[in-house]
Amino acid sequence: MKKQFSVAVVGATGLVGQTMLKVLHERNFPVSDVILYAFNSGEAHTPFGTKEVYELSGANIYRRPCDFALFAVSNEVSIKYAQIFSTMGAIVIDNSSAWRMDDNVPLVIPEVNPSSAFMHSGIIANPNCTTAQILTAMAPIHREFGIVRMIVSTYQSVSGAGAAALADLQSGECNVFDLPIKNNLLPKIDTYHSDGYTGEELKIVNETHKILSSRIKVNATSVRVPITNCHGATVNFKLTRTANLSEISECLMQAPSVKLLDIPTPLDAVGQDNVLVGRLRRDESEENSFCLWTVADNLRKGAATNAVQIAELLI
Amino acid sequence: MKKQFSVAVVGATGLVGQTMLKVLHERNFPVSDVILYAFNSGEAHTPFGTKEVYELSGANIYRRPCDFALFAVSNEVSIKYAQIFSTMGAIVIDNSSAWRMDDNVPLVIPEVNPSSAFMHSGIIANPNCTTAQILTAMAPIHREFGIVRMIVSTYQSVSGAGAAALADLQSGECNVFDLPIKNNLLPKIDTYHSDGYTGEELKIVNETHKILSSRIKVNATSVRVPITNCHGATVNFKLTRTANLSEISECLMQAPSVKLLDIPTPLDAVGQDNVLVGRLRRDESEENSFCLWTVADNLRKGAATNAVQIAELLI
Repeated sequence: MKKQFSVAVVGATGLVGQTMLKVLHERNFPVSDVILYAFNSGEAHTPFGTKEVYELSGANIYRRPCDFALFAVSNEVSIKYAQIFSTMGAIVIDNSSAWRMDDNVPLVIPEVNPSSAFMHSGIIANPNCTTAQILTAMAPIHREFGIVRMIVSTYQSVSGAGAAALADLQSGECNVFDLPIKNNLLPKIDTYHSDGYTGEELKIVNETHKILSSRIKVNATSVRVPITNCHGATVNFKLTRTANLSEISECLMQAPSVKLLDIPTPLDAVGQDNVLVGRLRRDESEENSFCLWTVADNLRKGAATNAVQIAELLI
Repeated sequence: MKKQFSVAVVGATGLVGQTMLKVLHERNFPVSDVILYAFNSGEAHTPFGTKEVYELSGANIYRRPCDFALFAVSNEVSIKYAQIFSTMGAIVIDNSSAWRMDDNVPLVIPEVNPSSAFMHSGIIANPNCTTAQILTAMAPIHREFGIVRMIVSTYQSVSGAGAAALADLQSGECNVFDLPIKNNLLPKIDTYHSDGYTGEELKIVNETHKILSSRIKVNATSVRVPITNCHGATVNFKLTRTANLSEISECLMQAPSVKLLDIPTPLDAVGQDNVLVGRLRRDESEENSFCLWTVADNLRKGAATNAVQIAELLI
């Protein structure tokens, strides 16, 4: 196989696209060339130097073949362009939710189900930010003790909704969100799907089933909170068998990309690729039950880092 | 009984004390006189006009007998002064946690257990802000369907920690909190008590047992979020029997001081005495289980309004 790879970043000027470039550079991904795509052409300052940004179009894609295309765009844009890249021979690693539940598309967290990545037919999906974060912490627990049920409440930062949402956070206006996020909490992320659940909540359920096990019962409430970056989540979980708190701690301490702390906060997690876990304790109200708090940088482990890690698996 | 009552507000210059004065005035509580106490004497502008503020001291309390003393101070101050007021014949309604679990002190939410208020021996306790909010919504459900278990995650505003905490929220400094609250989430409120739980979390458990039923299993995680005012909470709950979503909606729509909405936010709840409930849906992952979101003004239903309502019960 090659030693160096040309990597396209699609949506290169957005928050996740920019973070992908940063993470590729930080992790010394063996890049021969970086090709930037966005809606508008121009120039962008990247860790790889100042680069031309190409307008996303079939013609431009055909003109510049690449080995990997890291997508950080909406579902609509992903549906329109991912297959063009893959037809041209690129492996697409997509951060939208467009392909995640497609049976022909692996949905991968490198620490959890790395082998799935190799079953791809040109497109690999990155999980939702909260799924990536929660399962990075919960998968080792599931493997050792068996998780019966998880009840999740999220505390999701505004950067997860993109740069324009961060402007709403400052101004108190509603250009991105339906309701003001400044000095407020929005207990509804994404649109309503079935049975009163939002798309964001069902992603946690469905992606857990696809990545980890369809037997785990999952319930989630997703709430947007007025912080710039990093998502928090509480997880109450029941195991199939008895376990000591110290065994679960030990399991988390051994887990890749997990850091067990006392009270990790978003400000601790910013810029980190690890998922921080804290407040681990027994839930005395139910047999074999525990709860914990997790926080991670949603632009990194929840998006860019996970995508770059998938590419690393394949080289 | 009297037609008008002299009311002392102890901690009258703090956020809760000021809200008590506002609520007494708004609800036309039959006040003959309002007596203000704080750590420092001075003057305060209140809805009852500009009033003298007396330094909290035994001598000052003896000098000015009153019918009710509404306490909005710390546990330490409450322990020191509540019995002096009650010895002088006042009924103390205390917002600290100092007396809540005392067997001789009723812990009252007027919509939930009003008759308990009459069993007092001079001191009545107001529940913790999150308990008041959650049980106002959950008690009617418990009465009709029986709650087996509740799993709570809170999203608590900064005003719950007082005026100095609001300065930390603006500045990013840590004068009140151990860690910065500005642009951050603090997944630990109050100090650690037993088994890795914080005092704030155990209040929800213990106060639910005292107010509603000791048979309800409760688990809570309390998180401080960077908003000025109003607490949010997710509640996942299991019932003793089958129920339709519409029956639970109906129950909440009939419940006193509860407003059932779609996606209530803190900005909707500010200045309201009602507990707003939304996102009610079935939890398909577990038999007879449901979840909801609740938000309320922690300075009002979580503190001042509940205290004034208790006084209203007794007159």
